[in-house]
Amino acid sequence: MEASNPTPVPPIPTIALDDDEITIIDQTLLPTEERRIIITTVEEMREAIQSLRIRGAPAIGIAAVFGLDIAARTSVALSRAELLRELKIASDYLAASRPTAVNLSWALRRVYDRVSAEQTDDVAVLVQAVRREALALLQEDLEICRRIGEHGIDLISGGSVLTHCNAGGLATSGYGTALAPMYVAHERGVPVHVYAGETRPLLQGARLTSWELARAGIDVTVIADNMAATVLSRGDVKAVIVGADRVAANGDVANKIGTLGVAILAKTFGVPFYVAIPLSTIDFDTSIGADIPIEERLDSELTSFNNRPITPVGMDVYNPAFDITPAAYVTAFITEHGVVYPPFAKGLAAFRDA
Amino acid sequence: MEASNPTPVPPIPTIALDDDEITIIDQTLLPTEERRIIITTVEEMREAIQSLRIRGAPAIGIAAVFGLDIAARTSVALSRAELLRELKIASDYLAASRPTAVNLSWALRRVYDRVSAEQTDDVAVLVQAVRREALALLQEDLEICRRIGEHGIDLISGGSVLTHCNAGGLATSGYGTALAPMYVAHERGVPVHVYAGETRPLLQGARLTSWELARAGIDVTVIADNMAATVLSRGDVKAVIVGADRVAANGDVANKIGTLGVAILAKTFGVPFYVAIPLSTIDFDTSIGADIPIEERLDSELTSFNNRPITPVGMDVYNPAFDITPAAYVTAFITEHGVVYPPFAKGLAAFRDA
Repeated sequence: MEASNPTPVPPIPTIALDDDEITIIDQTLLPTEERRIIITTVEEMREAIQSLRIRGAPAIGIAAVFGLDIAARTSVALSRAELLRELKIASDYLAASRPTAVNLSWALRRVYDRVSAEQTDDVAVLVQAVRREALALLQEDLEICRRIGEHGIDLISGGSVLTHCNAGGLATSGYGTALAPMYVAHERGVPVHVYAGETRPLLQGARLTSWELARAGIDVTVIADNMAATVLSRGDVKAVIVGADRVAANGDVANKIGTLGVAILAKTFGVPFYVAIPLSTIDFDTSIGADIPIEERLDSELTSFNNRPITPVGMDVYNPAFDITPAAYVTAFITEHGVVYPPFAKGLAAFRDA
Repeated sequence: MEASNPTPVPPIPTIALDDDEITIIDQTLLPTEERRIIITTVEEMREAIQSLRIRGAPAIGIAAVFGLDIAARTSVALSRAELLRELKIASDYLAASRPTAVNLSWALRRVYDRVSAEQTDDVAVLVQAVRREALALLQEDLEICRRIGEHGIDLISGGSVLTHCNAGGLATSGYGTALAPMYVAHERGVPVHVYAGETRPLLQGARLTSWELARAGIDVTVIADNMAATVLSRGDVKAVIVGADRVAANGDVANKIGTLGVAILAKTFGVPFYVAIPLSTIDFDTSIGADIPIEERLDSELTSFNNRPITPVGMDVYNPAFDITPAAYVTAFITEHGVVYPPFAKGLAAFRDA
């Protein structure tokens, strides 16, 4: 497996902290423009998440806790109780920015819980704790991505891989989830070729997956979403790998709209369908996929493009941002702790309890 | 079935002849601009077909024979042999504009054969015959569309219908093929609701199907192609209907890229999948779908939009314009002679021989 490719790929600084300055890559401008924007208020962070300047389940969890860091640093609270109350308000405000990805509320809750567990009345110490926990989360995410990549590499070798949307470095702080096996393979000199579904309406595949894989020197071919059936029918795709925004306890998967279709097509053509996730994407409090809230986004995402209309004025559209893929279509989950095959309810819970 | 809706929908003048002036709606400008362009040379007609100013299998057949009419009218041939040779050259030139739709070569061959069967050496009479046969084809197409609509109406009542691309009035000279049952239903006051897949990359669903159905007062909801699985999973879609560019003798269907995916999803969710075609779309000389040539179009259709890049510069893309849906996924063909259920090889041949 080890070969001669000497170019390790530096992770994309999707979100970065330098002194007290938090910056993100504005993903709405990619690939035509690579611009970092400075986030200075909780409101700006919420807007950045809501308008998809930063997106991807793990990345918005990290972004949100850096929003909490801003709230802590800019607070004038004089007491522990006051600060914790403000953090709670900021946390709820940030959590409401997008409904489907569970990492968002998970990350906010984790930081809040750990800070409030600090046995001190010193406000400055609590403010420091927010920063420490946010940085810990960022660092952990990096390591989790790498481990997902290492667990996934054996599943993708020997052919092309098809992915949908962007579950790469831009969606995390590290190598991504779905794209991590490709990055690790590439690092080891194993040839990789990726088909990236363009992912209408916001083209995360055409704009972001293509950009980050090409940046790393990995071969990528962009297709329209409706070409997946043809590509999968030809036999050269070894595996489909996608990320997820939330996985129910039974293994049902909420992910970017179009995932369900790709999963069904993969099954039809006998191609394994893998979902790469950190454990934090599993919502053990949601028993089945039907209970996961699905965000519907603005009509304008489908009725116009680059501010030019592409449908008649006032056209009725339906624009769900996610769909639910029943667990029956999932070959396996690739997590930081290893690969989980069915039955998923048992396998996923075992990792939680480990 | 007959109810109280008094608004018959006038067919769209996709292609029109007024004196010797041939005009088409430039479909690349819809829906933002409804502009007719005048076609005065064979070269302009070929360009109009190739660049999709006029598209849809039946419509490009008709457009091509009006190209032949231009060739005949502008010819300075002094003998029957000379004129027929020129018509043959124009015919081959027009037929080569797009490879997949069989109606194109079928219509050209029909007009050429009928003209060359005229027992006269009078060049003016032969030129008149080209015009007569072109007009006959236009008129027949109108009637064929209407009959497809009448044969299809019972298959769509009682729920929504999902369609892909545009096999409507803009793709024919009449009510279209796939959309004809909806137009006939609407005429009769039967409520109809259509989901139109936007159809990347050129958005014939978002731009054209939406435009013509809304123009007729028919309810239409535009979705991204990758939302078809979610829509079909919900149970309110009664039928999928699409057109075709070529049907092999065994019933395999070449149609707009994405059709195969929709067909598989329809089967998965137990929704009937109908293909509405005139008999002229069946290529009895092609035994199976794998033998149908598939047009690949320019990378720029996927790498840019409204002349703005949507992928990194130089990105590799794969852009087939059509896919092949195996006959096994087709519930029935809706033709001008009636509905054909499996076995298709026998049923389709029976209509040919009738």
